[in-house]
Amino acid sequence: MLINGKHYLSVNEQTTDLLNLSVQIIDQRLLPFKLSFVTLSSVDDIIKAISDMQVRGAPLIGIIAAWGVVFACRDEYISSLKFKKLDDDSYQQRIAVRAERVASARPTAVNAKYCVDLVLSETERAETPQEKTIAALERTRELMKEDLEICKNIGIHGLEIIRSIAEKKRGNTVNILTHCNAGWLATSDYGTATSPIYMAKEEGIDLHVWVDETRPRNQGGRLTVWELSENGVRNSLICDNTGGLLMSQGQVDLVLVGSDRTTLRGDVVNKIGTYLKALAAKDNEIPFYVALPSSTIDWTGSTDLEKIAIEKRSDDEVKFCEGVYGSQQIKILVTSASAQVYNPGFDITPSRLITGLITERGVCNPDLKGLSSLFPDKMGSV
Amino acid sequence: MLINGKHYLSVNEQTTDLLNLSVQIIDQRLLPFKLSFVTLSSVDDIIKAISDMQVRGAPLIGIIAAWGVVFACRDEYISSLKFKKLDDDSYQQRIAVRAERVASARPTAVNAKYCVDLVLSETERAETPQEKTIAALERTRELMKEDLEICKNIGIHGLEIIRSIAEKKRGNTVNILTHCNAGWLATSDYGTATSPIYMAKEEGIDLHVWVDETRPRNQGGRLTVWELSENGVRNSLICDNTGGLLMSQGQVDLVLVGSDRTTLRGDVVNKIGTYLKALAAKDNEIPFYVALPSSTIDWTGSTDLEKIAIEKRSDDEVKFCEGVYGSQQIKILVTSASAQVYNPGFDITPSRLITGLITERGVCNPDLKGLSSLFPDKMGSV
Repeated sequence: MLINGKHYLSVNEQTTDLLNLSVQIIDQRLLPFKLSFVTLSSVDDIIKAISDMQVRGAPLIGIIAAWGVVFACRDEYISSLKFKKLDDDSYQQRIAVRAERVASARPTAVNAKYCVDLVLSETERAETPQEKTIAALERTRELMKEDLEICKNIGIHGLEIIRSIAEKKRGNTVNILTHCNAGWLATSDYGTATSPIYMAKEEGIDLHVWVDETRPRNQGGRLTVWELSENGVRNSLICDNTGGLLMSQGQVDLVLVGSDRTTLRGDVVNKIGTYLKALAAKDNEIPFYVALPSSTIDWTGSTDLEKIAIEKRSDDEVKFCEGVYGSQQIKILVTSASAQVYNPGFDITPSRLITGLITERGVCNPDLKGLSSLFPDKMGSV
Repeated sequence: MLINGKHYLSVNEQTTDLLNLSVQIIDQRLLPFKLSFVTLSSVDDIIKAISDMQVRGAPLIGIIAAWGVVFACRDEYISSLKFKKLDDDSYQQRIAVRAERVASARPTAVNAKYCVDLVLSETERAETPQEKTIAALERTRELMKEDLEICKNIGIHGLEIIRSIAEKKRGNTVNILTHCNAGWLATSDYGTATSPIYMAKEEGIDLHVWVDETRPRNQGGRLTVWELSENGVRNSLICDNTGGLLMSQGQVDLVLVGSDRTTLRGDVVNKIGTYLKALAAKDNEIPFYVALPSSTIDWTGSTDLEKIAIEKRSDDEVKFCEGVYGSQQIKILVTSASAQVYNPGFDITPSRLITGLITERGVCNPDLKGLSSLFPDKMGSV
């Protein structure tokens, strides 16, 4: 999508040769105050980028995690050039151990593990460390291409929903509420929840987006407002408390959010606060759609909501708030220094509150039957 | 309640004689970072204190607004000592004009107007500016005493609800969620939503309070956390997004909030975000009670929710966040400088989501019948 009128991707490969692999990302912790690009070239860079949230958003985390496996392979390749004695098993073992560290850099997002496993299984089939590196690199490049296609297709299917609302509203502005950032910054391009929005904007539909601030990290206020504005989509920032009032006043036509993890029953684990907006949408009979790549679907996982691990994040995210003062990006204390805090990162929106799931293969009901109809090929693994 | 182990009230009268009237308040904009007392002695001081939110919370605004009428009378008394020619009508007229300015310093809170009108009607009955000042002063002192009694009684009635939950939980911690600050800082003492909590704590019930941060002004994070902690009530600060998850996980036994305005149908206008918590409570079958002094009940007003004016507050409350950095209290920009913002201050929780109203006369159903049973004497004005 656009920044200052110029097209960018969230991840840019900068490979010169197999021993010099790296990717460039936008350090999202500095947005919207500063646009800064960072080069990642080691497994530790990858883990840091994911856990410190230089990159965030399920699809982007998946791609970056895949790069982690590439770097793990390359490290073995380099060490194989130095010490020629090790057998292939121990290479693969060490790759797997580090891939596991990458996959668990943030516990709730299922598609870090999904992407890591995909790439890892390619490396298993390859024999030498060099071949493993090539296999991992090729699979990761494919993943990036697939992500782009997936986001585009989510946009195409989601656009139909917006189009039909626009028709009902006979040219009046379509008001969409979104939570957190399921934008192009969360993927390689287009985004998930934002993809239908960008396509509707391109088609000339009169749109306005209510952007939830999304405490504690303010991804809505910092990322979604920025990327929508850079791409010419009219939007208003609101507090996380505000969506209920807007919905009760008829000021929201559609709620569109992303998913970090989707169960086979169609329940959605997404940024904390999503559930509250789903309740308000239900109470006011407003369509509530979740845009998700199938990589967020937990094909093999439990459908028992109580067993889903909800990431608990640092107290300081709540006690401090980050922003700019003069030209400096700082964190200020916003409560008592001694305050006790509880800071879970996600909540679970039960499928009964969800109108539909927008996937790369189409829109379906939020249940096993709906998902099976779109993804019969994946059901074997259940 | 206690600050540093010492007892304080939110408003302290500092009158020396009828020409030297003033009250001392805590500047709540500096809490929890700094405890600072401010003296108010003019109508403009009062309007500024209310509109700038040095004082906030419906009951406290009511009391402070009443003091505004006292000061308006005193000003006329002083000018009557200088210019002895004016007739009584023009005194009263000028008092009424300024009282109206005080009453409308914040549009949504109904009990500023309620208290102003009460005091104003006393001044109408008095003849000379001196008598008007005495009448206003006496009525305002009564209002303060009444507020204290009201808060105490809300506590006594609300305590029964907490007690019965504690009995069901057989000694396990009772978890209460509250939004914004309906604490002693919002009244003269005890608070409304917090009054039952303080009484339960005194009775030795094992309690823990989840405190909603309450963006954009963070009254929960700044005031409620502080006052609960100062009074030894165990509490945890959470983001406004978090309550839904906690409720779905069985970590909340009771939701207890205040009200800025209560319709005769039992609908509650309260801090933006209250409605979302009521939805989550309903969805998880958790009791949702509103603690309110009857002064927040709009006896004569419309029950048509669409006609209730919702105060729209400044964009900067959302674009900037206030806190301390080093020893300095500052505001930092937390979104794009050019972001568009929508910042309504209140939402409406429909009575169907409310378990009961806790008033100074007891607990009732949130409807006209419930309110009439407790306040038959007020119903004449409907």
